[in-house]
Amino acid sequence: MERAPLAERLLQGQRGALARAITWAENGDARFARLLEAVYHKVGSSLRIGVTGPPGAGKSTLVNQLARHLRQAEKTVGILAVDPSSPYTGGALLGDRIRMEDRTLDPGVFIRSMASRGSHGGLARATVDAFDVMDAHGFDELIVETVGVGQAEYDVVGAADTVLVVLCPGAGDGVQAMKSGLLEVADVICINKADRPGADRMLADLSEAVHIRTAGKNVWETPVVSASAGQDKGVDGVLEAIGRHRAWMAEEGRLQASREKQRLEQVHRVLREGFDNEVWERSGLADSARAMIAASRTPHGAAERILEVLVASLPTSWPQSLEARTPEPQEPTP
Amino acid sequence: MERAPLAERLLQGQRGALARAITWAENGDARFARLLEAVYHKVGSSLRIGVTGPPGAGKSTLVNQLARHLRQAEKTVGILAVDPSSPYTGGALLGDRIRMEDRTLDPGVFIRSMASRGSHGGLARATVDAFDVMDAHGFDELIVETVGVGQAEYDVVGAADTVLVVLCPGAGDGVQAMKSGLLEVADVICINKADRPGADRMLADLSEAVHIRTAGKNVWETPVVSASAGQDKGVDGVLEAIGRHRAWMAEEGRLQASREKQRLEQVHRVLREGFDNEVWERSGLADSARAMIAASRTPHGAAERILEVLVASLPTSWPQSLEARTPEPQEPTP
Repeated sequence: MERAPLAERLLQGQRGALARAITWAENGDARFARLLEAVYHKVGSSLRIGVTGPPGAGKSTLVNQLARHLRQAEKTVGILAVDPSSPYTGGALLGDRIRMEDRTLDPGVFIRSMASRGSHGGLARATVDAFDVMDAHGFDELIVETVGVGQAEYDVVGAADTVLVVLCPGAGDGVQAMKSGLLEVADVICINKADRPGADRMLADLSEAVHIRTAGKNVWETPVVSASAGQDKGVDGVLEAIGRHRAWMAEEGRLQASREKQRLEQVHRVLREGFDNEVWERSGLADSARAMIAASRTPHGAAERILEVLVASLPTSWPQSLEARTPEPQEPTP
Repeated sequence: MERAPLAERLLQGQRGALARAITWAENGDARFARLLEAVYHKVGSSLRIGVTGPPGAGKSTLVNQLARHLRQAEKTVGILAVDPSSPYTGGALLGDRIRMEDRTLDPGVFIRSMASRGSHGGLARATVDAFDVMDAHGFDELIVETVGVGQAEYDVVGAADTVLVVLCPGAGDGVQAMKSGLLEVADVICINKADRPGADRMLADLSEAVHIRTAGKNVWETPVVSASAGQDKGVDGVLEAIGRHRAWMAEEGRLQASREKQRLEQVHRVLREGFDNEVWERSGLADSARAMIAASRTPHGAAERILEVLVASLPTSWPQSLEARTPEPQEPTP
């Protein structure tokens, strides 16, 4: 049976093609680069939301409601559920997903769970890649949800235009949020489960903390909104706050600058993976490091020496040498 | 006031010098490389234990008890508490630490908390560095404790000779442990809070799973032991299991091979950081990537092109060029 190439089927909006493309992204499959090249002209129109927050804040429920409200507004929605701490919380998260997927047999919604493979930025790389193919596939809105608020989670939600941080009253979330770098990464803060005691105080405290941080500066003042996603309360308010952030991002070329920065970071991540796989493993470099270790050189001394040689052997003018060749898009066969 | 160089004070066993050396390790301070070189001849005699497991398994309590029992056996103990998901759990962990430090005014015990800075293996690099200076300082036993069981945590406990995984009955830990890659990284499994219902069943299930996985192979069969660290029960059994693993590691050069592998990974991590800081940022590479992004090249296409140039410019024989220069240890001034 003849089948159209994966890129073509992806652009036609075929779900099976999208699922495979995301699997390639997830696994760092070598065929992904060619696929992306073939669909890249269609990448860029989806709006991207990143959702994070501590476990138990009700992120999945809120994402579910956001998707429902977006669907009511005739938007198609692609959701990526990413779990950096993988094996352990995998079970619970998958449980949520399955419940969620039951409710969304709607063809205008696509949900995909993505597990962590390896570390060193691989998950953030895979997230951006998955978003790009979901974008090419044609969703109006993309949402990535991840659990936690550490560096790995920030890297993941960094694939979005707007970062929504979900907290819930009690459990010291508010204080922790202020202490940690959370205010700096959040574009919108949602205090979920707002029927719980302490919600009003938390809202006031966080709003004040945001205001103090941003007053008098030409920066975005993160809105703090309340919701009870389980009771479908306040969800439109969250979407409205996201909308205001989008409007702000659209001014003065902020969105374009943010996306260029994201793409630059993606080059860096792909390059890092390439360095690990090709340069470190295949160029004899690991063997050389092994020999230096055996000769009692410190790991730092060995790395310094390698870096010295590496830097010395770099071309003196990158841009010239790089622009000499034009890309030749090739269509991968699935 | 004249002060002896940091390396000298570290080798004399001064706590202040150790604290500063670990801060350098934590921050990736450029002076660390020279310091390590100056004390490296004293690195290698400490025995290293890595402790991980899901939140709430009672790791800190168990580590506290392990330290107490090791002290009773006249061993000095250095403990490193590492928290990869940093900001959020930082508070709770620090609370545990403070309680723990109250109990250990004993000069034979040293406890240090280390927060995550950045990602991409930076924490694992800092852990190995901190262990190395604690080792040079002269502790008999080193313990690193980290919360969670994802890739970042495995990277951290990978700095140890023996990995102890702590679980507790209920919460599905046992099933999750079998599903995830946990059995493969654990050298010893401790079922803590063993007075809780389900502990016996968990012990039997995990023991069987380990046995099935290792039967007939010339590999270590991970012992599964029970403890109730809060009631000081079973702690000697944990130490005994660790001792058996150590005896096994001492055979057939396994310990040496494991440490060589750790050091090689450390070279790779330091090199990766150096690549990010020096090659990516300073060599004009990021600018070139920016230009390719602006010209609508995909991130993968841009990275591929850079890697191509990079690989083409590498020296053809690493070992020769690298051994031409001998290291010149220099003493840093603190």
